[in-house]
Amino acid sequence: MQAEIITIGDEILIGQIVDTNSQFIGQQLNKIGVAVYQITSIQDDEQHILNALKEAQSRVDIVILTGGLGPTKDDITKKTIAKFFNDDKIVEYPEVITHIKGLFAKMNHPFKEIQRYQAQLPSKATLLMNHFGTAPGMWFYENETVFVSLPGVPYEMKGLIKNQVLPRIQKQFKLPFIIHKTIMTYGQGESTIAEIIEDFENSLPKHIKLAYLPSYGRVRLRLSAKGEERIELENELNAAVAKIYQLIPDIITGLDDDASLEKRVGELLKTSNKTICTAESLTGGKIAATLVSVAGASAYFSGSFVTYTAAVKNKILNVSKETIEKHTLVSKQVALEMAKGAKEKLQTNYAIAVTGNAGPTTDKNTDNLGTVFIALATDSKAIVEEFNFGQPREKVINRTVSKALEILQREIL
Amino acid sequence: MQAEIITIGDEILIGQIVDTNSQFIGQQLNKIGVAVYQITSIQDDEQHILNALKEAQSRVDIVILTGGLGPTKDDITKKTIAKFFNDDKIVEYPEVITHIKGLFAKMNHPFKEIQRYQAQLPSKATLLMNHFGTAPGMWFYENETVFVSLPGVPYEMKGLIKNQVLPRIQKQFKLPFIIHKTIMTYGQGESTIAEIIEDFENSLPKHIKLAYLPSYGRVRLRLSAKGEERIELENELNAAVAKIYQLIPDIITGLDDDASLEKRVGELLKTSNKTICTAESLTGGKIAATLVSVAGASAYFSGSFVTYTAAVKNKILNVSKETIEKHTLVSKQVALEMAKGAKEKLQTNYAIAVTGNAGPTTDKNTDNLGTVFIALATDSKAIVEEFNFGQPREKVINRTVSKALEILQREIL
Repeated sequence: MQAEIITIGDEILIGQIVDTNSQFIGQQLNKIGVAVYQITSIQDDEQHILNALKEAQSRVDIVILTGGLGPTKDDITKKTIAKFFNDDKIVEYPEVITHIKGLFAKMNHPFKEIQRYQAQLPSKATLLMNHFGTAPGMWFYENETVFVSLPGVPYEMKGLIKNQVLPRIQKQFKLPFIIHKTIMTYGQGESTIAEIIEDFENSLPKHIKLAYLPSYGRVRLRLSAKGEERIELENELNAAVAKIYQLIPDIITGLDDDASLEKRVGELLKTSNKTICTAESLTGGKIAATLVSVAGASAYFSGSFVTYTAAVKNKILNVSKETIEKHTLVSKQVALEMAKGAKEKLQTNYAIAVTGNAGPTTDKNTDNLGTVFIALATDSKAIVEEFNFGQPREKVINRTVSKALEILQREIL
Repeated sequence: MQAEIITIGDEILIGQIVDTNSQFIGQQLNKIGVAVYQITSIQDDEQHILNALKEAQSRVDIVILTGGLGPTKDDITKKTIAKFFNDDKIVEYPEVITHIKGLFAKMNHPFKEIQRYQAQLPSKATLLMNHFGTAPGMWFYENETVFVSLPGVPYEMKGLIKNQVLPRIQKQFKLPFIIHKTIMTYGQGESTIAEIIEDFENSLPKHIKLAYLPSYGRVRLRLSAKGEERIELENELNAAVAKIYQLIPDIITGLDDDASLEKRVGELLKTSNKTICTAESLTGGKIAATLVSVAGASAYFSGSFVTYTAAVKNKILNVSKETIEKHTLVSKQVALEMAKGAKEKLQTNYAIAVTGNAGPTTDKNTDNLGTVFIALATDSKAIVEEFNFGQPREKVINRTVSKALEILQREIL
């Protein structure tokens, strides 16, 4: 069973927004055994939408559209869908009017006539009521193809996918199983890993695929299997994973949901009943945000300080003025004092601190461009390491976050 | 002049990563007058890549591919491109070998034979050297269509686009001008705005388009114009913008690059020589991150505290234990004490503090689900406002960030 996701909106094509809807829909479809064959982003243009619908219909069984359902003039998805279905007529659905009036009453907004347009849909549509907004989703089944049209607002789309679209797809089709297992590694490049596991990779059966996903010093190895028998697939994948563990035991941080360093670190902290805080400069809070992105982080994450200036580093974290003057802000000594200061303030078991020069700089002195110091204070000691992550800025910040978590994991273990 | 972006990689289709490359490429092409007609994300599959190339060639003048250039077995872009160009042969480019050896020497890594594969490219390729990685970009011009193949690693792709691809496109084609102006509004829904400016919208000439981009309590109005005469287009767009300012003067926060609230607020702070800090609970540092995302924020942003627990709120921000006990963590009083405490600690002119229940909750008591208190302490007073942003969690957090900046702007003005 294959699907195509079509996202409609000029704002995607001119790069004004990132299309995150497709990612979510892709994940959700995969979980129920529907493979996404293609994602297509197109303009708010009638002919373009008609072409995309026709092409998708020739390729896949399920077509999911998002966007273009608003009440304004640039939203043309509904009337274009009506045209696509042999000039279906547009009719008003009274239950949608009732729903919108209810929503507006709750917010103490008056109902406006322009909202009536949200209730006018192709007559062939099966309504998918939208509890978070005014534009309903629509379900069509024509010529053995499912077409679903959803609003582009992410939380409205997500509610409709989870509560209405997935259950309907599962009812409509007999679905195979698609299983992924992802192994997270760190410290080695993809070419090195590929060399070591080459024979293993060549021996994989055709229905199991291996992909390398490198990013900022980590490489994820994703194994995907597709078939009719869930248990058999699970067994095959588990055997493949075990083999990879044998081949590269030293560089694996975890598997699947446990695969991210932040989850792994979080679990280690939770089971050992320890707490952590961060003191950040160039990363602007991103290490804390990464730690907090794990559900249940409040059990071990106490708080964080973003300290940009010398004055604030001194005032909040007790980094001494002499240290800053003697060694500059980007130094081993400042990183160490930041870590110790944060640990002292929040009385945690661990404190990570980072200081560095992420660039770009207008300064003539670019000696320390890309230089980063990462310090870790624990109950028994304080360590600091120096790195140069080069350029650009984005890479320096992301590698700092990744490396800080690696150091933390190494110390906890 | 139209382009299509093709991103290759199963990781996009199964939703493992978000395709941010397309956004960047879309922005950059637009700036030089190339419209992106379509973005297509496809699988690491030979036939699928061949189909996509053929279809794109029939639609546009410029085809930009990213992904699939790594040294591992799942990277099949190069040999597929060679096949597409009438079975072009693959040859080794010695300058790439030299480049890779240089890169590895800098990092003190030994050169590996598997890396040699990165230097083997179709013979018709014009090399685009990649200063941030081992996989070169490739430029082809066949049958009056430009094909560009780039690595999928974002900072490598970005370097190649800016330094090599854009200048080459500008040299190859005579390009029209595409200009966008985006007006940021807040506090009104898109349907209300659409009603007010309906006559204006209907009067726009065909080469000027208006789009509504709603997100979390703000609506951006984007005007786009395309034509041969830059000055004429600028004048037309400026007149249209002035008209919108006349029609909805009270809800506009700014224009274009100044359009984001965080930039506007940043400028206000900078020109009035004031400083700010934040104390955050449910937003986990996102207000600070939003403020800091503006280049030059260090001039007015002093720091931030992420305080999750009652104990840390007490210890770091001096929120009194009695206040927490009497009013609970999610209360007007706690928000006010957080703001005052942060302002006192960092000696800034303004401090924003937020506390709330973003949900979801396993608690039986869901009375305050979605409830948020936003406090602002200034040199002369402290204010607090209560909101309920409903659900889901994502919406509550984002609307809190947006509303906090709105309150701040209102107070500074």
